[in-house]
Amino acid sequence: MHTFRERRWQTFLQNYQNRARLVISCPDKPGIVAAVTSFLYEQDANIVESSQYSTDPEGGTFFLRIEFDCPNIAERKQEIENGFTSIAQSFQMNWRLHLHNDIKRIAIFVSKEEHCLLELLWEWQAGELLADIALVISNHEHMRNSVESLGIPYYCIPVTKENKSEAEQKQLSLLKEYQVDTIVLARYMQILSPNFVAEFPSRIINIHHSFLPAFVGARPYERAYERGVKLIGATSHYVTDDLDEGPIIEQDVARVDHRHHPEDLKRIGRIIEKTVLSRALKWHLEDRVIIYGNKTIVFH
Amino acid sequence: MHTFRERRWQTFLQNYQNRARLVISCPDKPGIVAAVTSFLYEQDANIVESSQYSTDPEGGTFFLRIEFDCPNIAERKQEIENGFTSIAQSFQMNWRLHLHNDIKRIAIFVSKEEHCLLELLWEWQAGELLADIALVISNHEHMRNSVESLGIPYYCIPVTKENKSEAEQKQLSLLKEYQVDTIVLARYMQILSPNFVAEFPSRIINIHHSFLPAFVGARPYERAYERGVKLIGATSHYVTDDLDEGPIIEQDVARVDHRHHPEDLKRIGRIIEKTVLSRALKWHLEDRVIIYGNKTIVFH
Amino acid sequence: MHTFRERRWQTFLQNYQNRARLVISCPDKPGIVAAVTSFLYEQDANIVESSQYSTDPEGGTFFLRIEFDCPNIAERKQEIENGFTSIAQSFQMNWRLHLHNDIKRIAIFVSKEEHCLLELLWEWQAGELLADIALVISNHEHMRNSVESLGIPYYCIPVTKENKSEAEQKQLSLLKEYQVDTIVLARYMQILSPNFVAEFPSRIINIHHSFLPAFVGARPYERAYERGVKLIGATSHYVTDDLDEGPIIEQDVARVDHRHHPEDLKRIGRIIEKTVLSRALKWHLEDRVIIYGNKTIVFH
Amino acid sequence: MHTFRERRWQTFLQNYQNRARLVISCPDKPGIVAAVTSFLYEQDANIVESSQYSTDPEGGTFFLRIEFDCPNIAERKQEIENGFTSIAQSFQMNWRLHLHNDIKRIAIFVSKEEHCLLELLWEWQAGELLADIALVISNHEHMRNSVESLGIPYYCIPVTKENKSEAEQKQLSLLKEYQVDTIVLARYMQILSPNFVAEFPSRIINIHHSFLPAFVGARPYERAYERGVKLIGATSHYVTDDLDEGPIIEQDVARVDHRHHPEDLKRIGRIIEKTVLSRALKWHLEDRVIIYGNKTIVFH
Repeated sequence: MHTFRERRWQTFLQNYQNRARLVISCPDKPGIVAAVTSFLYEQDANIVESSQYSTDPEGGTFFLRIEFDCPNIAERKQEIENGFTSIAQSFQMNWRLHLHNDIKRIAIFVSKEEHCLLELLWEWQAGELLADIALVISNHEHMRNSVESLGIPYYCIPVTKENKSEAEQKQLSLLKEYQVDTIVLARYMQILSPNFVAEFPSRIINIHHSFLPAFVGARPYERAYERGVKLIGATSHYVTDDLDEGPIIEQDVARVDHRHHPEDLKRIGRIIEKTVLSRALKWHLEDRVIIYGNKTIVFH
Repeated sequence: MHTFRERRWQTFLQNYQNRARLVISCPDKPGIVAAVTSFLYEQDANIVESSQYSTDPEGGTFFLRIEFDCPNIAERKQEIENGFTSIAQSFQMNWRLHLHNDIKRIAIFVSKEEHCLLELLWEWQAGELLADIALVISNHEHMRNSVESLGIPYYCIPVTKENKSEAEQKQLSLLKEYQVDTIVLARYMQILSPNFVAEFPSRIINIHHSFLPAFVGARPYERAYERGVKLIGATSHYVTDDLDEGPIIEQDVARVDHRHHPEDLKRIGRIIEKTVLSRALKWHLEDRVIIYGNKTIVFH
Repeated sequence: MHTFRERRWQTFLQNYQNRARLVISCPDKPGIVAAVTSFLYEQDANIVESSQYSTDPEGGTFFLRIEFDCPNIAERKQEIENGFTSIAQSFQMNWRLHLHNDIKRIAIFVSKEEHCLLELLWEWQAGELLADIALVISNHEHMRNSVESLGIPYYCIPVTKENKSEAEQKQLSLLKEYQVDTIVLARYMQILSPNFVAEFPSRIINIHHSFLPAFVGARPYERAYERGVKLIGATSHYVTDDLDEGPIIEQDVARVDHRHHPEDLKRIGRIIEKTVLSRALKWHLEDRVIIYGNKTIVFH
Repeated sequence: MHTFRERRWQTFLQNYQNRARLVISCPDKPGIVAAVTSFLYEQDANIVESSQYSTDPEGGTFFLRIEFDCPNIAERKQEIENGFTSIAQSFQMNWRLHLHNDIKRIAIFVSKEEHCLLELLWEWQAGELLADIALVISNHEHMRNSVESLGIPYYCIPVTKENKSEAEQKQLSLLKEYQVDTIVLARYMQILSPNFVAEFPSRIINIHHSFLPAFVGARPYERAYERGVKLIGATSHYVTDDLDEGPIIEQDVARVDHRHHPEDLKRIGRIIEKTVLSRALKWHLEDRVIIYGNKTIVFH
């Protein structure tokens, strides 16, 4: 007997067994799309979605994401990659080929606030979050039951000023053991060290509970209340060494008014936070997000 | 001395003198994108934007819109079109090539409600509506001054049950004389005859003052009030012979509540109507809208 | 040891032990507010929120909702109600006095689609849905575990054409047994008989998966897809004998485009549905919704 | 012969000749609403709208705005004010009584960016901005024709570092001459001196072209572009001596993405700016905005 999620994934994997995506960035010049699409045509691939962007047609950087169907793509991946190498070299491409069925493995980090974790778990159960949730790491115990009851490993690693470095070593060792690709900070209230961040470049996604760059740092809802703003927001971004300064993936806002106390802002904000994080994560999982400098190109 | 609009257009025309767009629909099968982009590459064209959609990768219809820069495109248009013909035939393409600098000529039809016309005139003056407003036709006199003061011809053609056919003949003859490409019904409260519509297939854009298919027909705001809806909307669509049933280009809504009387709904609705019409018209002018059956594909 | 919800409720009940609300409708005439607020003042009540609306200051209907704090309101409720009777009679008022701590008992009806039920259960666990979920009734078995694991009774009553009347009798008997005040149809795909509806006048809340009055009836997402709308929506309304025609409490929409298949519309729609239903239910539970004719006044 | 605006205003003035509003703030304690509404009842007033807010029922500040109809209010205003004085004193009220037909006189300040001015002029012509536009002051000449053609005086007062104080003296003298109540900075790109601001406390409304507190100061769209935000916004606030730090009246946002250059952000931003400024100004004109500390209470 299978869960709802398993049945849904089975259908998905079957439907998309021939689907792959090619993500490219390179200096812009004429002929890129022609070269790539001709190559794909020769491989019997049928393009089903294509997005492109150039920072500047003259001397800029060109970004391309193509989804295509190709018979037996799973077996032929290596062969196709080999064939593509010469094109890639001639255009100085930075590129990746992903099979749709190679589902990314993620770790979710969480502290006391549970709404973002619960949203991801719920979407995962519903078969709408196409990721393997390899494990959940928290500095608190209280979500253990909810997580383990779904068959997902839960590790509680308390973090203090004193043991921070040691705690991060434990985390990194777990991430390695579980072969994690992407880390989701689902309201994890600890700042990661530069060493940690360096281990997962452009692969740690955070949700900040404000409309960045407004209210960088701590207590954003209290400060939003004090400033008397009429909209509050949330921002999902990649983590870099500069707190709340990494490339923004997605943002959203909700309307508030003078009647709302900080507790109300938090309640309203929770809905924005979980929605924004979920959207950003899904785009990342489908390789729709490309980092360029300190910004993102999102092909959605 | 030039107006703000003229200076802005001059800049635009200069910036985009090499820009063109190719809009294609055809049966989906592998190799379309490769063939088209290879052809463009051979013409020294650099693709700057590309959008595509397939109703079904297997046996469906494929839609493609490509913007590209190509030196001397204005002089070479005919040559490029000739060169493209064999590709087009081999894929059974329905296709058009447009120069960015070939600005469409539009006629605006209006009755008593003036907000949609005024919005279009204002955006045109600001250089943001890239269309030649060839003329304005109304069944009332009262907007003559506002229109003529901008140097745009204004024709008042009253319409009654009795003279409707005759009035439409006058309108059609003006549209021919002014070489009009697209007609905008900016709250023109008359129903066009099938004969008239047949003269401008897929080139008449209407704004309906409701969130279609809710409140098809007359007095939508009064009916929205009676039904007690909590959102009102507007819909811009192509005109067909079936009243308010043509392909929808764009829709939007605004929140209302129990305090709003029909007059308030109309006031709030005016802002939605003019915004939605303006968006839909601009997409149409840039050939971003493709009609497929009774629906639209909008590449924005 | 207490759950998160229990601790949160305890705080709530303590904070609001002196809070009550008075909801009034009557023929509009001068002096109503003065009479009511003077009366409350004499009872040592302090008004903390007040909303009013008149359909027409001359000869219309007046609606008033006042929240106030009053020491020992729980013990004094009967006495205050007795005292208010003469004012109520002199203005021909229809009125109700509710203590904030008298939490309403609700029954949730559900079929196969689970997202609305799960949203309500999750908000209830989080302490944000202030209702006693007395029981869940479904015509299917599959949500039993999720519901019972929270300590909420679950009854599966299959409904067919043949047993419909009998099934409704069972349901009504359970609703009576569990002293249910309000019924929530959380995507319950059965039409209730007029007899059933008559037992809970203005106390059955439905979520319809379209932006009413567009797409009344079955298969709204499929029909939205066929019509090519650019926004889809959901509507929460009170149930009357006319299908999907009852007073609307809340609506919302989300943007879609040509790439979305009916399955995508359903997925996007699920988020709107659960959000809209949750908002509508909360307003109802706080007595913020007043039915007037076939419309609602919502004091939020 | 009258303009559209004049006819519309005539209707308005007639409809609301008996309408007034009373705006009160005072220390919160029981009995305020009862005292005020009883007083109004004794004056034969019928309350048609009432809004209230308390920062804290125990020891906080209470805000009340009541709209009422009262026969011959224009003649009786002084008498009613006199009568109300003793109530006001006993509750230590800060209060104002306004007739609906006492339309406020405003001055619009503008620099080179014209969209906000044009929006206000257009709404004024349409009869939807109920203000006397006493004059327009600019540091540039180029909007003179548009303004004077509507019969509104236009003064060009160039401002440089050297003549700033002198220029402000000229402005203040004009504002006095024209008996201006409220100043609207419709993208006026000069910073007003503390002396100037002190002359119009809480009566200068600015539109800032960012979602404050993000991007305080100059070049917000360029900085939004550099930060890679996914939403841009605008903020209307009262002017204080701290740049962009005054009480916020209204804010709104629009979605942008990686394809938008600073010029696009400005174009999209113009629509938000003019909409937000117009909403904020209208609420101010109807005395719906109350300043409390560095925040606003908006009763809309």
